[in-house]
Amino acid sequence: MGNKKMNISTFIGCDKSYEEASLVLFGVPFDGTTSFRPGTRFAMQAIRTDSYGLETYSPYLDRDLENIAVFDGGDLDLPFGNTEKVMDIIFEYSRGVLTDGKKFLMVGGEHLVSLSSIKAAYEKYSDLHLIHIDAHTDLREHYLGEKLSHASVIRNCHGFLGDGRIFQFGIRSGLKEEFEWAKEHTYLEKFSLETFAEKMDELANVPVYITIDLDVLDPGIFPGTGTPEPGGISYRDLLDAIGHMQKLNQIVAADVVELSPPYDPSGASTAVACKTVREMLLTLGK
Amino acid sequence: MGNKKMNISTFIGCDKSYEEASLVLFGVPFDGTTSFRPGTRFAMQAIRTDSYGLETYSPYLDRDLENIAVFDGGDLDLPFGNTEKVMDIIFEYSRGVLTDGKKFLMVGGEHLVSLSSIKAAYEKYSDLHLIHIDAHTDLREHYLGEKLSHASVIRNCHGFLGDGRIFQFGIRSGLKEEFEWAKEHTYLEKFSLETFAEKMDELANVPVYITIDLDVLDPGIFPGTGTPEPGGISYRDLLDAIGHMQKLNQIVAADVVELSPPYDPSGASTAVACKTVREMLLTLGK
Amino acid sequence: MGNKKMNISTFIGCDKSYEEASLVLFGVPFDGTTSFRPGTRFAMQAIRTDSYGLETYSPYLDRDLENIAVFDGGDLDLPFGNTEKVMDIIFEYSRGVLTDGKKFLMVGGEHLVSLSSIKAAYEKYSDLHLIHIDAHTDLREHYLGEKLSHASVIRNCHGFLGDGRIFQFGIRSGLKEEFEWAKEHTYLEKFSLETFAEKMDELANVPVYITIDLDVLDPGIFPGTGTPEPGGISYRDLLDAIGHMQKLNQIVAADVVELSPPYDPSGASTAVACKTVREMLLTLGK
Amino acid sequence: MGNKKMNISTFIGCDKSYEEASLVLFGVPFDGTTSFRPGTRFAMQAIRTDSYGLETYSPYLDRDLENIAVFDGGDLDLPFGNTEKVMDIIFEYSRGVLTDGKKFLMVGGEHLVSLSSIKAAYEKYSDLHLIHIDAHTDLREHYLGEKLSHASVIRNCHGFLGDGRIFQFGIRSGLKEEFEWAKEHTYLEKFSLETFAEKMDELANVPVYITIDLDVLDPGIFPGTGTPEPGGISYRDLLDAIGHMQKLNQIVAADVVELSPPYDPSGASTAVACKTVREMLLTLGK
Amino acid sequence: MGNKKMNISTFIGCDKSYEEASLVLFGVPFDGTTSFRPGTRFAMQAIRTDSYGLETYSPYLDRDLENIAVFDGGDLDLPFGNTEKVMDIIFEYSRGVLTDGKKFLMVGGEHLVSLSSIKAAYEKYSDLHLIHIDAHTDLREHYLGEKLSHASVIRNCHGFLGDGRIFQFGIRSGLKEEFEWAKEHTYLEKFSLETFAEKMDELANVPVYITIDLDVLDPGIFPGTGTPEPGGISYRDLLDAIGHMQKLNQIVAADVVELSPPYDPSGASTAVACKTVREMLLTLGK
Amino acid sequence: MGNKKMNISTFIGCDKSYEEASLVLFGVPFDGTTSFRPGTRFAMQAIRTDSYGLETYSPYLDRDLENIAVFDGGDLDLPFGNTEKVMDIIFEYSRGVLTDGKKFLMVGGEHLVSLSSIKAAYEKYSDLHLIHIDAHTDLREHYLGEKLSHASVIRNCHGFLGDGRIFQFGIRSGLKEEFEWAKEHTYLEKFSLETFAEKMDELANVPVYITIDLDVLDPGIFPGTGTPEPGGISYRDLLDAIGHMQKLNQIVAADVVELSPPYDPSGASTAVACKTVREMLLTLGK
Repeated sequence: MGNKKMNISTFIGCDKSYEEASLVLFGVPFDGTTSFRPGTRFAMQAIRTDSYGLETYSPYLDRDLENIAVFDGGDLDLPFGNTEKVMDIIFEYSRGVLTDGKKFLMVGGEHLVSLSSIKAAYEKYSDLHLIHIDAHTDLREHYLGEKLSHASVIRNCHGFLGDGRIFQFGIRSGLKEEFEWAKEHTYLEKFSLETFAEKMDELANVPVYITIDLDVLDPGIFPGTGTPEPGGISYRDLLDAIGHMQKLNQIVAADVVELSPPYDPSGASTAVACKTVREMLLTLGK
Repeated sequence: MGNKKMNISTFIGCDKSYEEASLVLFGVPFDGTTSFRPGTRFAMQAIRTDSYGLETYSPYLDRDLENIAVFDGGDLDLPFGNTEKVMDIIFEYSRGVLTDGKKFLMVGGEHLVSLSSIKAAYEKYSDLHLIHIDAHTDLREHYLGEKLSHASVIRNCHGFLGDGRIFQFGIRSGLKEEFEWAKEHTYLEKFSLETFAEKMDELANVPVYITIDLDVLDPGIFPGTGTPEPGGISYRDLLDAIGHMQKLNQIVAADVVELSPPYDPSGASTAVACKTVREMLLTLGK
Repeated sequence: MGNKKMNISTFIGCDKSYEEASLVLFGVPFDGTTSFRPGTRFAMQAIRTDSYGLETYSPYLDRDLENIAVFDGGDLDLPFGNTEKVMDIIFEYSRGVLTDGKKFLMVGGEHLVSLSSIKAAYEKYSDLHLIHIDAHTDLREHYLGEKLSHASVIRNCHGFLGDGRIFQFGIRSGLKEEFEWAKEHTYLEKFSLETFAEKMDELANVPVYITIDLDVLDPGIFPGTGTPEPGGISYRDLLDAIGHMQKLNQIVAADVVELSPPYDPSGASTAVACKTVREMLLTLGK
Repeated sequence: MGNKKMNISTFIGCDKSYEEASLVLFGVPFDGTTSFRPGTRFAMQAIRTDSYGLETYSPYLDRDLENIAVFDGGDLDLPFGNTEKVMDIIFEYSRGVLTDGKKFLMVGGEHLVSLSSIKAAYEKYSDLHLIHIDAHTDLREHYLGEKLSHASVIRNCHGFLGDGRIFQFGIRSGLKEEFEWAKEHTYLEKFSLETFAEKMDELANVPVYITIDLDVLDPGIFPGTGTPEPGGISYRDLLDAIGHMQKLNQIVAADVVELSPPYDPSGASTAVACKTVREMLLTLGK
Repeated sequence: MGNKKMNISTFIGCDKSYEEASLVLFGVPFDGTTSFRPGTRFAMQAIRTDSYGLETYSPYLDRDLENIAVFDGGDLDLPFGNTEKVMDIIFEYSRGVLTDGKKFLMVGGEHLVSLSSIKAAYEKYSDLHLIHIDAHTDLREHYLGEKLSHASVIRNCHGFLGDGRIFQFGIRSGLKEEFEWAKEHTYLEKFSLETFAEKMDELANVPVYITIDLDVLDPGIFPGTGTPEPGGISYRDLLDAIGHMQKLNQIVAADVVELSPPYDPSGASTAVACKTVREMLLTLGK
Repeated sequence: MGNKKMNISTFIGCDKSYEEASLVLFGVPFDGTTSFRPGTRFAMQAIRTDSYGLETYSPYLDRDLENIAVFDGGDLDLPFGNTEKVMDIIFEYSRGVLTDGKKFLMVGGEHLVSLSSIKAAYEKYSDLHLIHIDAHTDLREHYLGEKLSHASVIRNCHGFLGDGRIFQFGIRSGLKEEFEWAKEHTYLEKFSLETFAEKMDELANVPVYITIDLDVLDPGIFPGTGTPEPGGISYRDLLDAIGHMQKLNQIVAADVVELSPPYDPSGASTAVACKTVREMLLTLGK
């Protein structure tokens, strides 16, 4: 008789043990600095459940999740209302995975969570480069007086990465000051990802961390997010970008953030996140 | 470093192994004969997720799930579109649990699923009595020509249980013929559960299976179901009934059916189902 | 082979021709003076569709729709933005039905529609009495300068019915002036229907029109309406009231208004309206 | 006075009798093998209701539904939970229409329903060719042990149509094995419809059945479906494809499947289905 | 010509200036420690907007908001992700209002916000008594390690109020330890408000702060909250309790918390909150 | 201590007084002739609230709302059910603003509201030209007998503007007669805005009124409207058109109509409307 083992619910095809796995998937249910519409805390849970509607095989990359050893580490246990402690827990977990010689794909949560995981990657790879796909600049020094904010996450990363290491694409919202600041300190393509392919060539042989804020997508295809920003890229554009990432030889980790299931009544945004997670796992795990 | 074990997602507090457990919780994601609004297949999944908003302690029964050994067996794997095979799988699973000397709480799915689990209980306990709490008679001989239908599940049970064994409460919808038939063959209280307490006294020392179709509740508190039927009982009425069940000394198994999460946009119906599952686990596990 | 006749859509069990029928059901898709949340125009359509989840037999009244000859006249064709023309069309249709010696049950639409149908009934029955079940007084002289408003419908009716003919129940919202005015001119029970049964005795042998604004129900069971007003009666209270209506020997027509399907995401409010329509048809058709 | 005839509900402009009509529209409310999110059973009903928001005139094709004689046959009456009987009923109805010398447009329901209607068309036209527009390959031999599954519908059709008769477009999800199998047995364009126009030239003078699974569209424009698959075509792409279908001289029948209204909270997906039905009726009826 | 003044948005009838007002209404858009479903940050905004569907006159209390001078102070400006700063801002604002000799009604936000406003009231009234209406005990020492949590707000209040000052009603969820602790330190009525009236007599002449967590209501009438807990009181029960509050002669301030508009798709929960705010303003302002 | 001034609610960055402002923003909460799905009355309110998720700076136009003096006049007070009075009120308000030497951006409401504001602009600028971006022709002489209808608004404008003054773009729905009529009397581009840029050159130096019916957008990005019409333009297309409007030297006023928040469950359509309002304010205010 079956069904005598515990009910294990993972992202589809990610059923390896930590020890077996070369790649770790984990969720960070944190939306504590979200300024508009909270709910990204439920993202990874929804993604796991709805990954059931997905195949493990990607006809885009012609690879199958079943051929990669992925461990689904669940969602981190986080305290509520204490941003600093949350940041520490993410940092420790990310560092642990990297120390054990594995890569990871983190799923947010709000974008601030990337600050800790990128810092952990930087600690191991001092010449880390950051690819940032997003609707928003995220380059504020602080937001309503708080330095730890989703709106300042990339600015905070610049603090340790420095000039010339950050590559931003698809950006269509921010303060005028942020766009000005970017001219000095980062590579920033406004509105689209037209130069993405060529930049991948440049970054082919350096350690790279990729952070994808799904609100880079048009709200037509991705309404389920905290701050929808009309005029974004199509999902095919994002699939193309992921195609170009295959040129990169040293992706050390990545994240996919800002799905907010309460604002996804039809489930389409969650389907987008599921497929992106699959494609990114296949990219990290190639 | 934590989070190195697989992400195990169970109903809150139900984290024992099959071997340790005296009580098995499992889901049956089947809504194949639903005539109006499908979606009960997603019930157990939603209940597991939202059980997080619940405490393990019941101030009603003054008992705690943490003091009972419950195994969450996940959801049964079922083929789509083949009702007979589905019925067989449920029967086999239920029988297996009972054979192993454990009790179970099954979560539907539509009401037809109870036919198999009740049959399995009857096979072990030939003097089985059935407590049926529901808005609908479920006493049709067939529905649009099909004998295996949610609308005929209790009539089918009568086929093996016989007269005098079935106790129906809260019934407020059915064909005139069904109400007439009930007068001859079952005990049926229309609209409410006023005689529930006294019937529990009568049934105190016989083997009992309890099937709760949550649509017995008023759609005010439980809109998330396939066929909402206004004029139902309140949740306090159901809590009272569960209180009276404590008189029963031989509950062998039970089920809770007909939550349909797609029709529960606020989550209130799922919260109702979660709490009912907790109270029924505490009832079965006392 | 079937399905060669046109696709006819009626409320369940209401498939008689106009000529055969003693009772006419029709919808009025009008919400033109709705001050808060529009959408009642879609009510009758939703009620027809969801009546499929209902039985034709009522265990409350022990009667079956299949034993009554009801014609479903569909929804009236109405111009948009011209309240006076709409009122004329309703009046003409209602009068026509009464002239043909039939009764009717009208389904709104907003409450203003009742003004025309009550006027038509009054034209035939000069000693008409009005039973008004509602959360709101509807006794304003005008609303934002408009005399034809859902908020003044009963006041308008008083214009021709006069003192002593209007019986209001369940009222829990209005201007202080309206409550004061009612003391002089109508019978008004605040908050509940406790005196409903006794008033039915008084009205047993006079011509009666019954208008039910479903927002008399608590928003717990009936959220899908333009102006939800917490603290209302339960659906069982309404079923009881319908039970007491059986004492009336001259019900000439009735209406059920203010279901707004866009505010009924779970479908529970529509189920309430369906069941109320069935019970009222059985009441009119006894 | 109007409204004395029965309330007839058809797709806009489709009010001819069966006898008058050269083209039959009918719905198949079946979702019994749906593996992820059920609800397509409600599609045709929602399409009829919301067709009210549509014009009968198409500025794309410069034709008007009012100039074509279309009969709306309503929805087939189907038993619940018995897939084989359902398949027989669809087959009989489709065959009857074709035998009577008429064309049909069937609206699903899940994609499995097409198996019966295509078989009926094949019975009359032994050299039938199949145009298949879809996100999914639908080429599995069986799904969870069941041969009659929405995931195997085209594979089942190949069983009688054979090699060289099936033309698939827009496909972006499936097992690796399915894509491999397609290379031998069907024409399959991945991801888009770029070769659609040229294939229409090839098929201009053979009997053709067209099956459109609306999930070929991007979930941005069509979220209301059982298995949303991001990265699909735009609605303009589909309109273009319909434009190219005008080259075909022997379209014998067609279907439009997989709208699931419960996952269409905004109504946009239903609007898409309505417009597609209008354009396909105009295409079949030219 | 009108509309030349700025667009002022207040709760209905609360349009006095701060100086004129004897009563201040303000919102606290904070949900930073919410453990399950966030969204209460949007409560006051939704309440202001939907108060348009309400009358200013209460037939329960026979008073009118137009006869009371209420200032609507808008929502406090709060930083995101810094719980301590938020608590300080609430404290300062509350203290300011009290220092100016006015009363206030605060609208949450999550329940933690009450800690600051109660502390401000206590600073002015050292013999302050607290009336706590809620589904949850809120008596934890800490929650996941955090002392500042919605789950520990009343326990924190006990820290300065001490034994014998806290009166809890309607409580139906908590840890066993919390219920045990309450026996020693607070007055706690489980499940209902049956002893509410008599306790109001006892508290008639002491300074009282009233905190209403709306989740005390049954999710049937109030689904739109972070943690719905089935089996709660009806809205009429709450209206009765407010009626009994009229016995109190020294209410110094009050709050209404935990409406979460994203989980209120029908708007019924917001209507409940609106009406409760009106009744509480009329209670504070008598 | 802050928050002592009244709670003022404006579109983000539009906080100037009427006297200071050169540009007036106001809402018209009217949907009285809407034939399909009402709800546009709530548009401006939703836009104000959600503008909080927007920046005041546009990276497209490289301008900032903070550098323009805009007064937000709130929503006009309108009677319900009296279309003519509503039209008068809009006309008076619009004329007043123009008479005071200011421009305006009006936000609907349904499209009929534009008739009054365009007439007011025409009264001041007798050589007014009209740019009309829409999915629908809006050229009917009357709709169900009513001349004042959203479906006839542009035809009504032609009544005073005359031939050669109306430029229509993106049109994809209407009667055949309307398209025929347009050939004689207006410039009409079907389906897209490809000729928009060149027409802007032609209109560079004449007085221009711009009316944007947001349903010109594809329902993929803009489902929240009364009559979604699939196959529309993308939001980038609209941003491009706004870019081309910068060539115009005499824009005297503009409007943005037909957002219907009840059909926007994810908030994406409201985000689209917010951004369009910002870009149009920046266009009018340059």
